[in-house]
Amino acid sequence: MNKVEEEVLRKIKPKPYEVEKIERIFSYVKEKLENKIKEYGIEAYVELEGSIAKDTWLSGEWDLDIFVLYPKRLGKLWVKNEGFKIIFEALKDMSHEIAYAEHPYIRLNVENVEVDVVPALKHDYAWEAETVVDRTPFHTAYIRSKLGEEERDQVRLLKRFLKGIGVYGAEIKVSGFSGYLTELLIVQYKTFRNTLAHVAKDWRTGFVIDVEKHYSSIREVKEKFKEHPLIVIDPVDPNRNVAAAVSEKSFSTFIAASKYYLRMPSLNFFYPQIGEVTIKDVMKEISSRDTDILCLTLPIPKKPSDVIWGLLRRNLVNTVNVLKKFDFKIVDYDVWCDEEKQAVFIIELEKAVLGSTVKSIGPPVFLEPDATYFLKKYLESKETIAGPWIENSRWVVLKKRKYREAKELLLNRLVSQCLSSVLKEYIEEHGFEIYVNNEIRKYVEKLGSKDFIVFLTKFLRKKPLWLK
Amino acid sequence: MNKVEEEVLRKIKPKPYEVEKIERIFSYVKEKLENKIKEYGIEAYVELEGSIAKDTWLSGEWDLDIFVLYPKRLGKLWVKNEGFKIIFEALKDMSHEIAYAEHPYIRLNVENVEVDVVPALKHDYAWEAETVVDRTPFHTAYIRSKLGEEERDQVRLLKRFLKGIGVYGAEIKVSGFSGYLTELLIVQYKTFRNTLAHVAKDWRTGFVIDVEKHYSSIREVKEKFKEHPLIVIDPVDPNRNVAAAVSEKSFSTFIAASKYYLRMPSLNFFYPQIGEVTIKDVMKEISSRDTDILCLTLPIPKKPSDVIWGLLRRNLVNTVNVLKKFDFKIVDYDVWCDEEKQAVFIIELEKAVLGSTVKSIGPPVFLEPDATYFLKKYLESKETIAGPWIENSRWVVLKKRKYREAKELLLNRLVSQCLSSVLKEYIEEHGFEIYVNNEIRKYVEKLGSKDFIVFLTKFLRKKPLWLK
Repeated sequence: MNKVEEEVLRKIKPKPYEVEKIERIFSYVKEKLENKIKEYGIEAYVELEGSIAKDTWLSGEWDLDIFVLYPKRLGKLWVKNEGFKIIFEALKDMSHEIAYAEHPYIRLNVENVEVDVVPALKHDYAWEAETVVDRTPFHTAYIRSKLGEEERDQVRLLKRFLKGIGVYGAEIKVSGFSGYLTELLIVQYKTFRNTLAHVAKDWRTGFVIDVEKHYSSIREVKEKFKEHPLIVIDPVDPNRNVAAAVSEKSFSTFIAASKYYLRMPSLNFFYPQIGEVTIKDVMKEISSRDTDILCLTLPIPKKPSDVIWGLLRRNLVNTVNVLKKFDFKIVDYDVWCDEEKQAVFIIELEKAVLGSTVKSIGPPVFLEPDATYFLKKYLESKETIAGPWIENSRWVVLKKRKYREAKELLLNRLVSQCLSSVLKEYIEEHGFEIYVNNEIRKYVEKLGSKDFIVFLTKFLRKKPLWLK
Repeated sequence: MNKVEEEVLRKIKPKPYEVEKIERIFSYVKEKLENKIKEYGIEAYVELEGSIAKDTWLSGEWDLDIFVLYPKRLGKLWVKNEGFKIIFEALKDMSHEIAYAEHPYIRLNVENVEVDVVPALKHDYAWEAETVVDRTPFHTAYIRSKLGEEERDQVRLLKRFLKGIGVYGAEIKVSGFSGYLTELLIVQYKTFRNTLAHVAKDWRTGFVIDVEKHYSSIREVKEKFKEHPLIVIDPVDPNRNVAAAVSEKSFSTFIAASKYYLRMPSLNFFYPQIGEVTIKDVMKEISSRDTDILCLTLPIPKKPSDVIWGLLRRNLVNTVNVLKKFDFKIVDYDVWCDEEKQAVFIIELEKAVLGSTVKSIGPPVFLEPDATYFLKKYLESKETIAGPWIENSRWVVLKKRKYREAKELLLNRLVSQCLSSVLKEYIEEHGFEIYVNNEIRKYVEKLGSKDFIVFLTKFLRKKPLWLK
């Protein structure tokens, strides 16, 4: 381990007082739960799961996952209703909120520690599990059985690295590497360094890792799991790809950053510094750059984080595709969202205003009725500037462009052609705004979000912070 | 035959005085040739060939093709030297010039009639012929045996129609339908009207006509003759495609014009009227149209017509491809040439000036050494505006565009990348000029060619003259 990694590990390894605090909170909540369970006369276990149970958590990141495991004969409907009710009754006097994943669960805040208390079923095998939470205890047990103290530190380093380069987390917003996936990489490659070495050297789109050798060949895996950049077979359930959420971009970012880190290790990868960001600098960059930046601001309905990010990403891609269809050349695009009220599509174009004429390729002269229809249309049209004429075997025409300005195109077609029904209905009611280049200042000032200014700065810079 | 066709036929059918004049000239030249042949004691025939021999010529188009057919045992080298010498000696006292095709021949001017006197070999079968001229007598004989008086008039109508729509002639400049091909279409389809009806209804790219049914199936023909829009098997030599010179554009123009003529017959197809053309109107159209017109003027070496047109067309396509490679959107292009000294590439672009930035797609992050090379290059480059960043699995960069202006691009790359060696050497010595939009006026005025103004007018209009 080199100096950089030693320094990082010093920072991220949990301190004794943290461990003590976490254990104390767990004991407290556990006792409350067990008392209530006893009242109901049910046979259930209260267990710690997740990174704290596996001892792969990072200092300062105090997220407790406490599972109440009920007998499997009770079934998932019972868990959802009765199982949840027992937990709720046990903890309702504490500071809490009700959260929803596949099932409802309780989120407590105890001494600034986030504690999720989740009802689940206790199965004999992971592949029996019907829900994500029922599978979790098997993941916990597997990782605990495979990782020694040394390797748990290696997981910590890898987690911090993935966080630093922006690809840690399976949620749609990040579309990166989950905690369990990170742990499996260390099970496979043993150390942080060795992981990076293999990622840099061996990984290509469609890479397969089968830690427990559940399959006899890569080919067998490839036939079963299609179109994912990375396929990591779940040791406890061979039908699952643990890396299904990893996007091509996250996958490629990990490869590129691994190569760069190995050439020149630096704290920068673990703790990227964006430096000072100001509206002034952002606006200066926008006005000096000879591209056009378009911000489309949308009010959004309140939805779970993954729902809203999935929706926004899909709708952004639709929007960009409509722009491309009308000949706009896209440099880059991204979406920002406060997950509460407001989202922004930011799109950079080579030019947001095109020439007023466009050549349009029609049908082959011998294809009827298309040829006659094309000729009739353009011989009579006021939009025709020259022609129609014959090029090779086709009719073509030079005509006025329908939409010269990207803004005009979106004002006309965003709702009807770019948005899916949920956003469409919401936007039809609440409206949207489009700001181009210098106009963006108005919006940024009104929004007053430092996070958005950081987002804009990164969007304009584009270069990953670890790339020097 | 409708009124239009009757009127056209009245105009194009040779008048008795023309026939008399042609016959008189042929007799005169024939006698001179036969006297000289007799002197040399050689057994040879003097024959009329071509459209006059076949009686398919048009009034006013007095081109006599007189062939001197020598015994085949003398061979083509003898024809080229001795055979030519005999003709030359017979006619050297008349107004003449020496012309070159595969062999040299004599071109006379007798009472404003162009008379080509060509030495050739007399074979027993067309497929024995090694040269185009040796094959000609078989074509003449075939057509004479197949066409009656009625059908010869139908050939005349079809020729005039093809001339009118601009696709008559197998020379590279036109890349259209030869006289012999036109005659074969009437052998196949009997009348002008029926030809147009079949062309409009049946013709598609790769259409096959095998008048004498030399092949057992279309498939057999398709396997032998590839990639021509039209395949017409030569009745006298089944290995030849008589329509090999027909371009996709000429082929398609014939189809489209046939459809339109059948819907609404008009003199316009036979005698297209461009109307009055002036520099003023051309320049007004150029400056009002929101595209950019670029004229590249080249001095050209003296070469046979087909050589220079072939060269110019290929070089124009190269030039357009270089423009496309650098992101310029091409509306249309063509070449004008006086076949003496001067040629002009005219290229219409959506915009002749592009934005100053361009997004450049690099290699996948895992592809080495490409990825490292790309990063090194753009991390250090002053051309880099933003990035490099990762998009899907690739590195990409936003950089300064190398050539913003089409003119600048061509000034830099025309000679090195667009021209083939013949033109390249000539242009390196004599230079070239580029005129954009309003600058074109200077050149047009200096050139002072009505033909070029007509060419420019048609280029801007684009719409075929027969299309209303």
